[in-house]
Amino acid sequence: MSEFIAPLEMLIEAFRHLPGVGRKSAERMAFGVLDMTEEETNKFLSAVSTAKNTIRTCSECGNITAEELCPICSNSERDKTLICVVEDSKAVISFEKIKEFNGVYHVLGGVISPRSGKGPDSLNLFSLIDHIKNNGATEVMIATNATVEGETTAMYISRLIKPTGVKITRLAYGIPVGADIEYADKLTLLRAIEGRREV
Amino acid sequence: MSEFIAPLEMLIEAFRHLPGVGRKSAERMAFGVLDMTEEETNKFLSAVSTAKNTIRTCSECGNITAEELCPICSNSERDKTLICVVEDSKAVISFEKIKEFNGVYHVLGGVISPRSGKGPDSLNLFSLIDHIKNNGATEVMIATNATVEGETTAMYISRLIKPTGVKITRLAYGIPVGADIEYADKLTLLRAIEGRREV
Repeated sequence: MSEFIAPLEMLIEAFRHLPGVGRKSAERMAFGVLDMTEEETNKFLSAVSTAKNTIRTCSECGNITAEELCPICSNSERDKTLICVVEDSKAVISFEKIKEFNGVYHVLGGVISPRSGKGPDSLNLFSLIDHIKNNGATEVMIATNATVEGETTAMYISRLIKPTGVKITRLAYGIPVGADIEYADKLTLLRAIEGRREV
Repeated sequence: MSEFIAPLEMLIEAFRHLPGVGRKSAERMAFGVLDMTEEETNKFLSAVSTAKNTIRTCSECGNITAEELCPICSNSERDKTLICVVEDSKAVISFEKIKEFNGVYHVLGGVISPRSGKGPDSLNLFSLIDHIKNNGATEVMIATNATVEGETTAMYISRLIKPTGVKITRLAYGIPVGADIEYADKLTLLRAIEGRREV
């Protein structure tokens, strides 16, 4: 039997399911919730509901957005002829943080992973061709993670969009192999952009 | 300006306010929420609401409970003549985990802290006298933390309950089991010397 009363145990388990949260952290957060005032609780619940209800994917690039278009696609100063293909919105944030990339993104929403039964159909992938054509894109920079799945996906994309005649580049190895773009430091990420090569 | 769209930033900040959660963890959890299915979201929201709506304090000891009495006070096999005074319910869990303590608890809900403007009135303290009398308690073991506030609170409680004639004890302080004396701080070592026992 758990040392915790049922509703507390349920709350701990709810936090436990969030990424990167261990049992001890989940316990601490659950007790944190118990210490909240009613106002703080409502604010917390509303933050979760609002995020879930208002955040959707950009109809152009697949990035998260609260509007029809994400802030990047709706920004007329961005260079739409350069499309950076990333696995998820977390990668977009990482690129935006370095403030050096002025192109736009195409967010796949995952990678091709036969192990997890994820094929190309489960990704925001085939819309990339329209995205390239509509933007009159001259270069597609593939920035999937430097993992086996990321590489496989990059290869697949490269073959898929070759017929459009667009220049296809891949992030330079500078990102430590096996690591996640989300955790790359700014300089490493900047070098990776500068050293991108045509494939 | 934040790299995150407003509803996501709000969600990150909501997680950020939970104890022990840094910015990066909060970001990861917020993205975790975005990845949730509708069912998972509802389960999460309901876990928070249910915990807040059903968990209250035990009328006898001040511990958290979903019933009128907490599982410990309502357990007839516990020795009610031994009361362990703790700062909060987290300490109760720690004691319960060792499965050796068979007394009951009295949960203060904090400590006396002039710095934070918390006086004895803000704690579940004066009810301790009734708790002692109703239980016919023979010993009160004060188990507040070994901090300045914890010590002050222990002193205050000790003076408060002295007139009841109950035996008052305090947790032993010394070198943690398994630790190296070389790394013990001066105060801990001093306490260990003061509390030395004949073998």
